[in-house]
Amino acid sequence: MEGVEVKEKDVCVKMLAAPINPSDLNRIEGVYPVRPPLPAVGGYEGVGEVLSVGSAVKHLSPGDWVIPSPPSSGMWQTYTVKEESVWHKISKDSPVEYAATITVNPLTSLRMLQDFVTLNSGDCIVQNGATSIVGQCIIQLARLRGIHSINIIRDRAGSDEAKEMLKRLGADEVFTESQLEVKNIKDLLTNLPEPALGFNCVGGNSASLVLKFLRHGGTMVTYGGMSKKPITVSTSSFIFKDLSLRGFWLQKLMNPDKVNESRNMIDHLLCLAREGKLKYEMELVSFDDFHTALDKALGKLGSQPKQVLKF
Amino acid sequence: MEGVEVKEKDVCVKMLAAPINPSDLNRIEGVYPVRPPLPAVGGYEGVGEVLSVGSAVKHLSPGDWVIPSPPSSGMWQTYTVKEESVWHKISKDSPVEYAATITVNPLTSLRMLQDFVTLNSGDCIVQNGATSIVGQCIIQLARLRGIHSINIIRDRAGSDEAKEMLKRLGADEVFTESQLEVKNIKDLLTNLPEPALGFNCVGGNSASLVLKFLRHGGTMVTYGGMSKKPITVSTSSFIFKDLSLRGFWLQKLMNPDKVNESRNMIDHLLCLAREGKLKYEMELVSFDDFHTALDKALGKLGSQPKQVLKF
Repeated sequence: MEGVEVKEKDVCVKMLAAPINPSDLNRIEGVYPVRPPLPAVGGYEGVGEVLSVGSAVKHLSPGDWVIPSPPSSGMWQTYTVKEESVWHKISKDSPVEYAATITVNPLTSLRMLQDFVTLNSGDCIVQNGATSIVGQCIIQLARLRGIHSINIIRDRAGSDEAKEMLKRLGADEVFTESQLEVKNIKDLLTNLPEPALGFNCVGGNSASLVLKFLRHGGTMVTYGGMSKKPITVSTSSFIFKDLSLRGFWLQKLMNPDKVNESRNMIDHLLCLAREGKLKYEMELVSFDDFHTALDKALGKLGSQPKQVLKF
Repeated sequence: MEGVEVKEKDVCVKMLAAPINPSDLNRIEGVYPVRPPLPAVGGYEGVGEVLSVGSAVKHLSPGDWVIPSPPSSGMWQTYTVKEESVWHKISKDSPVEYAATITVNPLTSLRMLQDFVTLNSGDCIVQNGATSIVGQCIIQLARLRGIHSINIIRDRAGSDEAKEMLKRLGADEVFTESQLEVKNIKDLLTNLPEPALGFNCVGGNSASLVLKFLRHGGTMVTYGGMSKKPITVSTSSFIFKDLSLRGFWLQKLMNPDKVNESRNMIDHLLCLAREGKLKYEMELVSFDDFHTALDKALGKLGSQPKQVLKF
């Protein structure tokens, strides 16, 4: 901590854990549209314990657990000093790996289910990339509201196991892309209503499959592009099927009037995590094994759970 | 009129004029998603004079000029019998060719300027296919509200004349597609704000050009696909640029709660046409020359004004 001054509104936090998210890597690669001033410390979310507070800090005390909300840069370090307004105090009985990862993926899932289309119990959503953490959270959060989910996954070794895993989380239907090479995709929906809302984190053909499932007037929200392929849409999808295409980016929630709402959502999500109602696979890794964790996060060692560094 | 009974709520109309619209031809070709029961008479808009009314008709009398609103099938005939609720009475001093064509193209332009994004004087829109009648109406209706327009047209013989024609209507900028093959399209906008709303009736590269012009958070509305090519969108356009893609189809306005609003809009548009503030080129053709008019409407005789049949 030498050389870092804790000013009157500042809070010094000893970091406990922080994940390696794909967007962290994109930032380091320079392909993310928001760039920090250099030199910069990576890591955009995580959980820490308050070590000391400035004289004007009102609502935080040493020993409190805090997370940056909205997410804030520089979480990959042992100690971090930021103004009180950056930090959101959370319950200390939260599992540390969930506390460290709640502000990016699960919040994305919850906001996307709420911010675009009004859904009611009995309604249905469709998504691709369903095995991602966002996808897993969407399945669980939808199910808790009585909303059904149709899930699209890649064809690959282990897709049967992935299907079982998603169904255990509450998925109603899970299809591989090749299963959807049929004349009328909607014939596959025997007991489900046509979805009014779809989520796309893949692009290319996989996005087209989401569009095919959507009902007249439905909305597809794009939040990722794992295939690196664009989204192609027919003219008639817009004119005759009245589809809407939108995008979601958590960065938009930096907007101050959204902060309190998002913090309430985070408390709700952590509550669900504590109760075991919101689950996703993670690997807690000692900081000494940072290099292996990074290789895993980069996909160099095959499919791996999200890597969460313990400091 | 032999064999057609005028029931108590019916109105018998002697048609005066009706256009040949592309969507009329699509219906006959069977490529339109709404199909009339066969046998059917073509023509979806037009103007006529009331010849006789049923005993329960309250608001129409012989001699009134009427147009079907929402548009209604079977306008290509000398006499048409439909219920009173189909017909909207208009001012008889409306130019007959404008009265015959006001419910499809100009209404599309007006609704698209109103239904998607709130625009204020000084704002800007961008559109492709700007030489179409819808495009020409958008330029004029925008200009009347102090809204600027950026217009994209095809590269072709006569594009300089087309540019001049659109500028005379009030277009701020007119570019051919090849002029937009530049690194940063927005460098071309020296005195205009970035547009919040775009209109696409072409698809393919021309739609991508509309998307490039749009500002962060902008909306593109697709209402046609003249190139027969789909719309291709990058993932980052949705996530980082927060673009929304929507569609417009006049058929949606069949919704009863939109009828009165649309009829008020039609009165407004006809008023503008009478005052010379809304203009577009048409050719009034005697029904005897129907075959030539049809060839022109089908594009067999090169670029031609909209064909309006006089009965």
